Amino acid sequence: MTYCVGIRLDAGLVFVSDSRTNAGLDQISTFRKMIIYEKPGDRFMVMLSAGNLSVSQSVREILQVEKIERGSEPPLTIWNATSMFDAAQVLGSAMRRVREQDGPSLRAAGIEFNASMIFGGQIAGEAMRMFLVYSAANFIEATRETCFFQIGESKYGKPILDRVLSPSTPLDEAAKSALVSMDSTMKSNLSVGLPIDLVVYAAGELRSTRVACIDEHNPYFRMISRTWGDRLHEVFAGIDDPSWDGSDVEHPLLVNAGRHEPMRKIADSTQRIV
Amino acid sequence: MTYCVGIRLDAGLVFVSDSRTNAGLDQISTFRKMIIYEKPGDRFMVMLSAGNLSVSQSVREILQVEKIERGSEPPLTIWNATSMFDAAQVLGSAMRRVREQDGPSLRAAGIEFNASMIFGGQIAGEAMRMFLVYSAANFIEATRETCFFQIGESKYGKPILDRVLSPSTPLDEAAKSALVSMDSTMKSNLSVGLPIDLVVYAAGELRSTRVACIDEHNPYFRMISRTWGDRLHEVFAGIDDPSWDGSDVEHPLLVNAGRHEPMRKIADSTQRIV
Repeated sequence: MTYCVGIRLDAGLVFVSDSRTNAGLDQISTFRKMIIYEKPGDRFMVMLSAGNLSVSQSVREILQVEKIERGSEPPLTIWNATSMFDAAQVLGSAMRRVREQDGPSLRAAGIEFNASMIFGGQIAGEAMRMFLVYSAANFIEATRETCFFQIGESKYGKPILDRVLSPSTPLDEAAKSALVSMDSTMKSNLSVGLPIDLVVYAAGELRSTRVACIDEHNPYFRMISRTWGDRLHEVFAGIDDPSWDGSDVEHPLLVNAGRHEPMRKIADSTQRIV
Repeated sequence: MTYCVGIRLDAGLVFVSDSRTNAGLDQISTFRKMIIYEKPGDRFMVMLSAGNLSVSQSVREILQVEKIERGSEPPLTIWNATSMFDAAQVLGSAMRRVREQDGPSLRAAGIEFNASMIFGGQIAGEAMRMFLVYSAANFIEATRETCFFQIGESKYGKPILDRVLSPSTPLDEAAKSALVSMDSTMKSNLSVGLPIDLVVYAAGELRSTRVACIDEHNPYFRMISRTWGDRLHEVFAGIDDPSWDGSDVEHPLLVNAGRHEPMRKIADSTQRIV
């Protein structure tokens, strides 16, 4: 599988992706799922991909050269688009092209045409934007209310993002949250693995300046992984266990083949925090 | 959807279930998913169910009276089984009976026969055991290596259980972890909701003594929910953000339509913990 996160903040954009792919359990490989398209000073775009690897690799390849004809105007490409929305249209067009080419034979082989992309960035003169592109080539945009997208194995790592992210979150703090989210996902799901690609982009830069490929030797990620786990244990230990009083509570779903004793319930007094 | 957790520890068993069901988004109801079968002093069994509500309710109803014929011996029921393994066989038999009855018409309507159960407990003279029963009526047993089972929306709440549970975890601490797991799941997924049913069973009791139905007014759950969220924020804030040095790192997945600037990477020095 795959796990990727894209975050759109007031301060900039954060992209994180893992690099594990598997076709069955005995064919596990490393493929990077992040690609940066940039013309420094003019445009900066990142695509993260999940789903069928052959589909997403084809889309990635085609996207660089994909053209949408516009009558007498020069064809629209990601390199001349004047808005990220137009660039996302080009991505949709690339997705449709791959579907036309590979869809029928995939279907004949009983394989679903399955791919989704997070595509975000900035083009000079426009605000940063981020899109989630579905395999049908339609897409939605991140907003202030929903400031991050996940693709792939997204559930394990969602709670921490739900808790800490808002549009005003500082960039590096958001990067940290994405790495914690990735760490939790990797701990609970073998199909997501190192190395991790990370890009942090500050609004208006129009070039990639903070890029990291994080492997098992990366001291920062090791620190996060260890510290987060240790601190969670401390926090967990610091919360009171439930205490039980002697009240008689009839459990509504008790099927009883004999007389039963009164049951106790969780004490109704507010718990003290140690 | 549903979220249920069953935990088998050296000290006893913990069962937690939510109570939200939905058929589409405009038909959301509350149904309890936990049932206790007990004959105090002789046997204590709990079943948690996920999947199609009509299937799991039917299985629950039938299980009380299901019989497996054994030639000249009295038929096997959950009330006379001498081992939890035999009781799980009776549950499997009830599942097959419901499938025979409802399967064809469900299939005709294009609906999958979909149910899974966590079934655990203790019968006098035997150790505690816990099983995960699939819709095909086959089942697996919890072991020391895998001491908990989840059914339903299991991914959001798995990381915390992975981090804190082991066979030697004390009972009330395990109950606390299951409630934290439930809280995280409810925060990230609307299809899981209050009230929560909780049962904590100490080895050898052979009756239910600690049972709670936790609603939005429950002070302990409110405390856990608030404290866990607040402390996570504190821990998160206490971990250093990544810092970036000026090293030149060539990102392998950069597609560049022009010259690009050197990129910085995450500093390779170990981060200080604040």
